[in-house]
Amino acid sequence: MRVNGQAHRTIWLKAGEPDCVQIIDQRFLPHELVIEDLRSVEDVIQAIAEMHVRGAPLIGATAAWGLYLSVVQQPGDFDIGKLKQAGERLKAARPTAVNLAWAVDRMIAILELANSDFTDLTKREAELICDEDVEICRKIGEFGLSLISDIAKQKNGPVNILTHCNAGWLATVDWGTATSPIYHAQQQGIRLHVWVDETRPRNQGASLTAWELGEQGINHTVIVDNAGGHLMQQGEVDLVIVGTDRTARNGDVANKIGTYLKALAAFDNNIPFYVALPSPTIDWTLGNGELIPIEQRAADEVSFINGYLDNEQVSVRLTPGNSPAANPAFDVTPARLVTGLITERGVCEASEEGLLGLFSEKIKHD
Amino acid sequence: MRVNGQAHRTIWLKAGEPDCVQIIDQRFLPHELVIEDLRSVEDVIQAIAEMHVRGAPLIGATAAWGLYLSVVQQPGDFDIGKLKQAGERLKAARPTAVNLAWAVDRMIAILELANSDFTDLTKREAELICDEDVEICRKIGEFGLSLISDIAKQKNGPVNILTHCNAGWLATVDWGTATSPIYHAQQQGIRLHVWVDETRPRNQGASLTAWELGEQGINHTVIVDNAGGHLMQQGEVDLVIVGTDRTARNGDVANKIGTYLKALAAFDNNIPFYVALPSPTIDWTLGNGELIPIEQRAADEVSFINGYLDNEQVSVRLTPGNSPAANPAFDVTPARLVTGLITERGVCEASEEGLLGLFSEKIKHD
Repeated sequence: MRVNGQAHRTIWLKAGEPDCVQIIDQRFLPHELVIEDLRSVEDVIQAIAEMHVRGAPLIGATAAWGLYLSVVQQPGDFDIGKLKQAGERLKAARPTAVNLAWAVDRMIAILELANSDFTDLTKREAELICDEDVEICRKIGEFGLSLISDIAKQKNGPVNILTHCNAGWLATVDWGTATSPIYHAQQQGIRLHVWVDETRPRNQGASLTAWELGEQGINHTVIVDNAGGHLMQQGEVDLVIVGTDRTARNGDVANKIGTYLKALAAFDNNIPFYVALPSPTIDWTLGNGELIPIEQRAADEVSFINGYLDNEQVSVRLTPGNSPAANPAFDVTPARLVTGLITERGVCEASEEGLLGLFSEKIKHD
Repeated sequence: MRVNGQAHRTIWLKAGEPDCVQIIDQRFLPHELVIEDLRSVEDVIQAIAEMHVRGAPLIGATAAWGLYLSVVQQPGDFDIGKLKQAGERLKAARPTAVNLAWAVDRMIAILELANSDFTDLTKREAELICDEDVEICRKIGEFGLSLISDIAKQKNGPVNILTHCNAGWLATVDWGTATSPIYHAQQQGIRLHVWVDETRPRNQGASLTAWELGEQGINHTVIVDNAGGHLMQQGEVDLVIVGTDRTARNGDVANKIGTYLKALAAFDNNIPFYVALPSPTIDWTLGNGELIPIEQRAADEVSFINGYLDNEQVSVRLTPGNSPAANPAFDVTPARLVTGLITERGVCEASEEGLLGLFSEKIKHD
């Protein structure tokens, strides 16, 4: 999508430097656009764990490039064992999003079959994962567009969409998941307004979603996470679209902490609540969402907050020095609260039947 | 309650200075205990509008002292018209909490009946409003205590209570509303742990509730507003108690924005959700909560946040400079989601029947 009017992806191989992957270090947005060079798998693990990059699809893509860098670092001394170890360390960088494991396993599978050209193979596979992600997100946008255009036909004024966290192009390679239908609707000339949950504790909504919507010229308003229920009661929300970090086989969705609360409010106010996801986010091995591991992040992400003071990023303390804090990073929204799942193959009910209707190759034949 | 081990109220007449009311300027907590002198009704209006004091019962008590100061300022020239004007300006300082109008009307009614001794009369009435508030909150604590002790009898380990915003002693003259049962349970030796919603945008939970619980030695953990639903799903919450700024005749409750989301989650997880309130918070004139005016506060409260950096309070920017923000300050929780109301006369169902069972003098005789 656009940054200062220029087309951008979130991750790419540095021009002329085949041993360097570049990312947008998202910790500095919206106030600074910082491009970071990653030159080793260690750099990549740090970038994922410390959330220079985040979003389930993007951390998958970044992990793929991590394995590429791991191969580049040992060109004359190919050791699949070492690469598998690197893969395990990449997987452990963050526990909830299943895309990380998916991308690592896919890269390792390619390497296990290979006899030579390891660098080229891993480069091609990482590029393929990225290109596929772009195409998947584009299709999610096309399928999600109809949900927005249906509402637009039935109302005067803009379609009001609420989203939580950042499931935007910054969370993917391009387009985004939850935002892709929004960007496609914009291209169709549909009038839109997006309610952006700030998404404490790390404020991905206030810092990333607001920024990327602004860069694409989409009307939006930032709200605190507490406000969405009230806006729904007041008829100010027509549609909710969020992303997910892992979707279980039965349609339960893990997403950024607080998503469940918005799903409850949407259900209570009869507002459609959709989850946009690329199929690598589906964990077919898990029967329901209660089995999804929930990352517990550092308490300091709650006790302190990053913001800008005199054009400089600072971290300020919010709580008494002797008050502990807890920081579960995700919650699970039960399928019963989800109106539908928007995937690259179409929109389906949030259920095993719904998902298998689109992904029939996953039907278990006993 | 205690501050550094010393008993404190939130508002009092300054010793030896009958024309000066003192408050804790709560904007600087938890990092600084700032005592502010109020010497005029203008000082009081500013203190209420800019939230040096906040919380429905406390802004009522503060408004009463505002009218006292208004009388003190014109001792030889008593003019009920001017006082009524001051009363209207006090009422307009914040729209949602009905206690403000209640206290102003009570003070004006006393003055309208008086012929002399205006200063003494208003001083006595303001003191009475404060003393009554303390007694009301103490009784709320006694009645709410049984809800906690009943849970304590049925479980091992501490009773986990979640609260939103600050309905603590800082929101009243003493004891608090939602916190009073907690302080009474502590006195009974019941093991407790409180989940403190930080309560964006102004973080009254992270800054005020965490601070006052810490000062009373009560175990607590600060969480972002997004986390409560997940904790309820995980069985980590036994009971929710919140306050209210205005309760309609049918038991609908307006409270700090985000309360509705916690009520939905409590209902979805079969967790008791109680609202603690002194009777001056009940607006008997409103049939339901949809009629309660919801304050819209400044967008900058969302776009910026106050925190501490090098022992100094600073305001840091969170959002892109060109992203608008919206800031509704309260929401309405429908009575159907409220397990019960804890009042100074006992616990009742959140319904007109429930309230009239305790406040039979409000039954309308046609």
